[in-house]
Amino acid sequence: MKLATLNKGRDGELIIVSRDLSRAVSAVDIAPTLQAALESWEAVSPQLEERYAQLNGGDADGAFELDQRALHSPLPRAYQWADGSAYLNHVQLVRQARNAEMPETFWTDPLMYQGGSDCFLAPTEDIEAVSEEHGIDFEGEIAVITDDVPMAVTPEEAAKHIKLVMLVNDVSLRGLIPGELAKGFGFFQAKPASSFSPIAVTPDELGDAWQEGKVHLPLTVHLNDEKFGEPEAGPDMIFSFPQLVAHAAKTRYLGAGAVIGSGTVSNPDPDGGPGKPVADGGVGYSCLAEVRMVEQILYGQVKTPFMRFGDRVRIEMFDRDGNNLFGTIDQQVVKYQPK
Amino acid sequence: MKLATLNKGRDGELIIVSRDLSRAVSAVDIAPTLQAALESWEAVSPQLEERYAQLNGGDADGAFELDQRALHSPLPRAYQWADGSAYLNHVQLVRQARNAEMPETFWTDPLMYQGGSDCFLAPTEDIEAVSEEHGIDFEGEIAVITDDVPMAVTPEEAAKHIKLVMLVNDVSLRGLIPGELAKGFGFFQAKPASSFSPIAVTPDELGDAWQEGKVHLPLTVHLNDEKFGEPEAGPDMIFSFPQLVAHAAKTRYLGAGAVIGSGTVSNPDPDGGPGKPVADGGVGYSCLAEVRMVEQILYGQVKTPFMRFGDRVRIEMFDRDGNNLFGTIDQQVVKYQPK
Repeated sequence: MKLATLNKGRDGELIIVSRDLSRAVSAVDIAPTLQAALESWEAVSPQLEERYAQLNGGDADGAFELDQRALHSPLPRAYQWADGSAYLNHVQLVRQARNAEMPETFWTDPLMYQGGSDCFLAPTEDIEAVSEEHGIDFEGEIAVITDDVPMAVTPEEAAKHIKLVMLVNDVSLRGLIPGELAKGFGFFQAKPASSFSPIAVTPDELGDAWQEGKVHLPLTVHLNDEKFGEPEAGPDMIFSFPQLVAHAAKTRYLGAGAVIGSGTVSNPDPDGGPGKPVADGGVGYSCLAEVRMVEQILYGQVKTPFMRFGDRVRIEMFDRDGNNLFGTIDQQVVKYQPK
Repeated sequence: MKLATLNKGRDGELIIVSRDLSRAVSAVDIAPTLQAALESWEAVSPQLEERYAQLNGGDADGAFELDQRALHSPLPRAYQWADGSAYLNHVQLVRQARNAEMPETFWTDPLMYQGGSDCFLAPTEDIEAVSEEHGIDFEGEIAVITDDVPMAVTPEEAAKHIKLVMLVNDVSLRGLIPGELAKGFGFFQAKPASSFSPIAVTPDELGDAWQEGKVHLPLTVHLNDEKFGEPEAGPDMIFSFPQLVAHAAKTRYLGAGAVIGSGTVSNPDPDGGPGKPVADGGVGYSCLAEVRMVEQILYGQVKTPFMRFGDRVRIEMFDRDGNNLFGTIDQQVVKYQPK
């Protein structure tokens, strides 16, 4: 099943989207918002599934043509947003850029940061930034949404609590990261509002591509309409989503609607190197920090700037037949103007 | 005005509490929840204030005797919980315990971590912990709740967005902190669910004690019914709440209902030392980590253990006439039992 949220009010209105993303139908009579649906998932998901089948069959009352630009992120705000770093190739590269070694424990103990979740951006909303000097970067990722998760859950049990999958643009201000990490308490100002794909899907929608709690499809990223990357999201994800959920829940409950992210999707090169740009025949990247680090390694200097006001990033995922699964994150960076 | 939340359902029900905490009256016809009230504060706060005046005057219809044990935290869950470390005496002591220097920039650039906010504990709810080996500690703090805050707000403007003040028990698992901080992304598993005082109050309720965005009263902490500390919350708070809110909003909007904390209240000794225990005539502490560090300094060894299952902590604040302002956080630590 595919769900989305009309951009109306703080929490939006829940709609069901057809498998091909062409049409939609309201679900507010079943659950007013996606958050409400997640809080009563066992009760409401069968009703949502039934209407989803009607919509795909062409006989859902009140169905309308879907305009993705009318959508907010599936959860316009959430009570929990925790982002892992499951693609260690990304972690190694970014740390290399800071001249920091990656400890061996990173292969067994997931890295995760607590993100801000009170004001997510809509998938086509401008990314407002105070200054280009902050080093504005995108990060293409995958995230799952859970229902209520008990404390100290095992990965096996955690898997059952994963209800939806979506994409993320985890906007990062690279210029602020070294200073914040040096303070020791992790990211804060360096991680402004994230946005999510217009559509969230149940794992069964991914068919064979959902294996062992990972999405085995490439993530496609365009920067200013040029292909920037399509790294495979499956093979190099060191920790599965069930493992990430279990990590997040080790000492706490997770409330229904918790969003748990994968970290930036990243592949090393088949030859073991850090991964080549698309122009050089590689799969490219899903953030600018990686290409900059690779340029530093290959050419001795960084050539690609961070995002400037007016730059656009597009993040989406297609199945092996070329169907857009989650809709498109398509955002422009603009200068923040006090209102 | 004093507001609280009945512990019913995920977001509770909004009530108004009399100044002396003896009586209460429902406010659900004005705003169903505190979160809803904060989202429309300008519209609803005059109505809430009017009923608060009626309640204090003894003529509010439907008023009832207040039972603090029926209350959840004012926001049972929130979209944003960011905790500063404005009492640098605490930061210095805790870092000393880890053999880490405190950088000079900490005097000008606030330390802040992003907390989990999806499942706060009620003020009298048990603190479930997986293991005593995690080093279970309490942290007595003050927090404010804001309405919608614009990005890049100045401290002067931020002050206007502070709508409510309350107390916090920022539960910490000290044994997990060194490992998490070494990973570089800040706290996660080391900061399980926090609880808040049963009652949140508008700053005007604090009278002269609310000066320059700080609360100039002692915070009283009892451990197993023995006084453990009553440090003054005003003088040693290096960053005011408006400064902390502005710090949190530097690169992002804060959504209505954002909770911003002060960090552990802590005083150095008048002689410049790290602060004496209550038993030695000092003001004591509002967390165990501090007394342990002081013992290490004074006696060459730590004597006070972290919390054990069955231990209780009580956190409250009295005005200079001995009136309890926010109600009482009173929690017992228990072993987590999978349900």
